[in-house]
Amino acid sequence: MNAMKIGVAGLGTVGGGVVKAFAKSGEALGTRAGTPLEVVAVCDRDEKMRAKYEAAQKFDDVKALAASNADLIVELIGGENGAAPLLVEEALKAGKHVVTANKAMMARHGARLAALAEKNGRALKFEAAVAGGIPIVKSLRESLMVFGVSAVRGILNGTCNYILTQMEATGRSFADVLKDAQALGYAEADPELDVGGGDTSHKLALLTALAFGVKPDLDAVAVQGIRHITPDDIAFAREFGYRIKLLGIAKKTENGIDQRVQPAMVRAGTALADVDGVLNGVVVNANEAGPFFFEGRGAGECATANAVIADIVDIARGNLGSVFGMPANNLSALSAAPAGSATSAFYLRFQVLDVPGVLAEIAGHLAKWRVSIESMIQRGRAPGEAVSIVMITHETSQSAVESALKTIAGSDSVIAPPCMIPMEAK
Amino acid sequence: MNAMKIGVAGLGTVGGGVVKAFAKSGEALGTRAGTPLEVVAVCDRDEKMRAKYEAAQKFDDVKALAASNADLIVELIGGENGAAPLLVEEALKAGKHVVTANKAMMARHGARLAALAEKNGRALKFEAAVAGGIPIVKSLRESLMVFGVSAVRGILNGTCNYILTQMEATGRSFADVLKDAQALGYAEADPELDVGGGDTSHKLALLTALAFGVKPDLDAVAVQGIRHITPDDIAFAREFGYRIKLLGIAKKTENGIDQRVQPAMVRAGTALADVDGVLNGVVVNANEAGPFFFEGRGAGECATANAVIADIVDIARGNLGSVFGMPANNLSALSAAPAGSATSAFYLRFQVLDVPGVLAEIAGHLAKWRVSIESMIQRGRAPGEAVSIVMITHETSQSAVESALKTIAGSDSVIAPPCMIPMEAK
Repeated sequence: MNAMKIGVAGLGTVGGGVVKAFAKSGEALGTRAGTPLEVVAVCDRDEKMRAKYEAAQKFDDVKALAASNADLIVELIGGENGAAPLLVEEALKAGKHVVTANKAMMARHGARLAALAEKNGRALKFEAAVAGGIPIVKSLRESLMVFGVSAVRGILNGTCNYILTQMEATGRSFADVLKDAQALGYAEADPELDVGGGDTSHKLALLTALAFGVKPDLDAVAVQGIRHITPDDIAFAREFGYRIKLLGIAKKTENGIDQRVQPAMVRAGTALADVDGVLNGVVVNANEAGPFFFEGRGAGECATANAVIADIVDIARGNLGSVFGMPANNLSALSAAPAGSATSAFYLRFQVLDVPGVLAEIAGHLAKWRVSIESMIQRGRAPGEAVSIVMITHETSQSAVESALKTIAGSDSVIAPPCMIPMEAK
Repeated sequence: MNAMKIGVAGLGTVGGGVVKAFAKSGEALGTRAGTPLEVVAVCDRDEKMRAKYEAAQKFDDVKALAASNADLIVELIGGENGAAPLLVEEALKAGKHVVTANKAMMARHGARLAALAEKNGRALKFEAAVAGGIPIVKSLRESLMVFGVSAVRGILNGTCNYILTQMEATGRSFADVLKDAQALGYAEADPELDVGGGDTSHKLALLTALAFGVKPDLDAVAVQGIRHITPDDIAFAREFGYRIKLLGIAKKTENGIDQRVQPAMVRAGTALADVDGVLNGVVVNANEAGPFFFEGRGAGECATANAVIADIVDIARGNLGSVFGMPANNLSALSAAPAGSATSAFYLRFQVLDVPGVLAEIAGHLAKWRVSIESMIQRGRAPGEAVSIVMITHETSQSAVESALKTIAGSDSVIAPPCMIPMEAK
């Protein structure tokens, strides 16, 4: 039987893990696949990286790899633009299958690359791009689409979840916990892509495409990170029976598809609230088929290599499928819900001077925007000094709350930007 | 484009759900599949059932259905032997694909039917046979096999989980809660297949085959149900920080594969402990790729129809694959761990007369079998009457505990069969 010949580009942690896994278990994987699998080429700009791995062919240039005799290219270079999409395009045009872990590229260029793959009758798979080893891409593409999906909610960034979990466990500030996470290798030296929510937005755009049969639309994702979350917010959340998690949320609404990345209050004891540390978790509301919950490692050499190799085995078995679960030509453009139209209850925290009338002033502005208050806590009591006022609103639109907060932030008695966090029902 | 023609046999809840789902969403499903999908035939012994659904052809005989012009047969008749395997064999021999929800048939005849399907180049899929809508069959077959699996643990029977959850919530007895469950339709009039553990054993045998690349071996599953669990056991469990769940467990051990269905103590706060009511949950320990957890509805019209239809769409997309994740000819015979060789800590409960020396007698018998005690609680204090003695052992083999309990059960002071429940670590 002819072996499926594999070329791996990008020999970092995951790429190295993939090559090592084939060296160790290639034969067993070939038995599973029903076809021998062989890594015939590796590609990296860095000669030292190339030198680490045995392969018949070594390339420093992605175009040369795309022109090699490999049947399937694994793209682990990363990056929205540049070498990664160049390699993928060239490989697909040359009639090769592609497996990638590149969420930024797929979120930005996914629809176009999917059409190119399908035009050439080749597979383009990206399980490793979302939630590491959790088979959520395959499950949305192949298992949970029968009754349609009304919403997907996920904890998709292990770094943020680790930081929030540690802030809760220790009561320390975001900045302090981030430093520890960097020392432990759980956060990058430049953490912005993680803590700013960008990484989650890439993953969310892909889950949205799979769940709703639309083209990934990164620009339609409203993104907020976790830098503004304080230990106080986490402590208040606990008092109300909630935990704060950075969620990627995609929901079908009357006004279109609402895609948001933002810290949210998740009720304690529910599945997502219990996802701790660097783990990832995803809830899929699949209408009559009921909610599904998936939890597992979101990153790391082996979890990600697992996803990459499962895609390879799938292709070797002849499961080419459609890239986003339906033919790329049938994917519709995403009709995005207007910004701020999402409704929920909200947690609001104000840092104010403890002067007479401040509460009346805040309450008045909220009332003007028809935001009504369900409960309130005031902490600290030191005339003329700073105190926290925390409120939970009844269900209202995000834009109403934002408008009210904008006015409130202008008050002389309000000494820091107000914090608002939506409460996620179930 | 030629439509894929579907024939559905067995028009009960799930079969009806499948036919209705195609009537409602057949076009959208066809778009996803890239091939139109059409139910062309239905089959049921009962004319009243056949009359409920529109289809070009209606059969009362499975052989006639197998000889029809359908490309794919959905087998929802059920039963280990009889019409169901007859239909599946005839259909595969006639070159048709088969989708089934029949766990008993697949657990008993799966290896043979898989070989027949693969010999004929046809698919045989059974996602709906295990854990309803949770895509655990596909995930084990296609996603989690890269680094190998060391263990699978699942709550696979919604009836048992509902009963245990209700017993915990209300403090009522097994028999009382069972009656309610029957009235609510959560338990059958003859509940034995569920509460005796047989249903879970069928599902476990299938998960074992997928996880370890072996032929399903139902006879190698040690099965215990939940009839003997008392409200006291559940209350003691809670005191120790555990919940009692009926688990199907398949583990790789030094002595072979250990397959067990039995009530187990699961530590509160872990994923499986939090699976409540009729839900199902599965934990897969996939070595370096880490543990995965899946939760969702285990039964019901739509969850099960979802699994059946996802299999149909998979086949329409050309994803035929191997039935158990590797070619049937490469599945090895299961090497079963000797009965009782599994080790863990155990919860033991003795109903004894409160007479001097009874504790010494029990402790003596346990010591003879080298079962050592980590903690003990004695409840009730009424000389000459019944009291409960509850112990947690250190890790030991199940057979040692069983041997000790056999001797202890013979004591005049012990007034009911002792209860033993393993403690599941993690």
